[in-house]
Amino acid sequence: MTETQPGASQPDASQGAFADPDYRAAVVDLLGAIAYGELAAFERLADDAKLAPGLADKIALSAMAAGEFSHLDDLQRRISELGADPFAAMEPFRQALDDFHSHTAPADWYEGLVKAFVGDGLARDFYREIAAYLDPETRALVTDVLDDSDRSSFVVDRVREAIRADHRLGGRLALWARRLMGEALIQAQRIAAERDAMTALVAGGVDRPGLDLAAIGRMFTRLTERHAERMGELGLDP
Amino acid sequence: MTETQPGASQPDASQGAFADPDYRAAVVDLLGAIAYGELAAFERLADDAKLAPGLADKIALSAMAAGEFSHLDDLQRRISELGADPFAAMEPFRQALDDFHSHTAPADWYEGLVKAFVGDGLARDFYREIAAYLDPETRALVTDVLDDSDRSSFVVDRVREAIRADHRLGGRLALWARRLMGEALIQAQRIAAERDAMTALVAGGVDRPGLDLAAIGRMFTRLTERHAERMGELGLDP
Repeated sequence: MTETQPGASQPDASQGAFADPDYRAAVVDLLGAIAYGELAAFERLADDAKLAPGLADKIALSAMAAGEFSHLDDLQRRISELGADPFAAMEPFRQALDDFHSHTAPADWYEGLVKAFVGDGLARDFYREIAAYLDPETRALVTDVLDDSDRSSFVVDRVREAIRADHRLGGRLALWARRLMGEALIQAQRIAAERDAMTALVAGGVDRPGLDLAAIGRMFTRLTERHAERMGELGLDP
Repeated sequence: MTETQPGASQPDASQGAFADPDYRAAVVDLLGAIAYGELAAFERLADDAKLAPGLADKIALSAMAAGEFSHLDDLQRRISELGADPFAAMEPFRQALDDFHSHTAPADWYEGLVKAFVGDGLARDFYREIAAYLDPETRALVTDVLDDSDRSSFVVDRVREAIRADHRLGGRLALWARRLMGEALIQAQRIAAERDAMTALVAGGVDRPGLDLAAIGRMFTRLTERHAERMGELGLDP
């Protein structure tokens, strides 16, 4: 076993987890999915910011959009270091993520806010679960990418205020959030079916622990529970 | 005269240039205009990135969009330090800047690229001219905000390539750039007519040198010359 040099940032194909080409392909897949996810989220949040009732709200949602974009450079660089083309790595996730967004275009400002909060939260929880199965360096990158984007606390204030003022809005937004969750699961399922490398990452490899079906079930339970917590924060019935 | 403390970042209303309430109002106006300009540019560039023929181009233009947004925080903070509300400071420039953008919605990807390059360049040159008349601290902020956004070199490559491939495109884009310049002048003129404080800033004050009409004429000549240089960079007739 060769020790990794402290401070070395270039993953070496011959070392550690990256010696396994399947692992390498899976990490490229994962980073490509996160990168395209950030690009798509950037685009849609910038769009949804147009629904804002005022300048302060528009700037707050636009800041979430710009935040999504801010790590794209790091992700692209890492994909290149792993010997893959960043745009090719993103491409396989384009359709699923674009479909997610086009099937969940918010009808008004509040649907946009709930989508920003619920979508961001779900993606973050999901990638954090996956990160547990990664080499330390990739895990650090993924964690870093996810941590920075917590600009969504203003969403909670706005949504709670609006529900207090109009009780029926709460019912509509609760249904909307359920639709978001459903659509996210449909697209995640589609990606899992199409991308063997990434699915194998979750399922584990020869030298790597993975998730059996029961563990995957528990993971989905955790994701659903955290989704319910977020709904609670917004003052919505899960 | 009180010396400004080195490292002091809070402008003090009783000191230096800020002792003059008109100067203060003018700086708030200027920063509000730049801030709303960045927000509007962010929004439109994010929109125009949808016209990109591929992922790499979309990301490059989206990066320009996110770059526009990146200094909004600093601008808002400084406006607050000057005792004004940042959203109220932006509001007076909303209509003119929104009108500029709605009158210059690009019909295709190349019009979008030319607009990003020409619009960004014009705004930068204009604010740099104004910055010469500001106190050092405000000048440093303005310069900082403008310097960071130079992500537009990819535009030059793309436009030159496209013109080489289709010569008629060059003629159409040259006309388009002329329209952009015309529309920018119309809106600048409108702002100058409506915002006395900012106009007074350019014209100077009791203790402050300003521009007489001849000097304003020379400034516009410089702006036009630099616009022509940018057109040359893109391979377009000015």
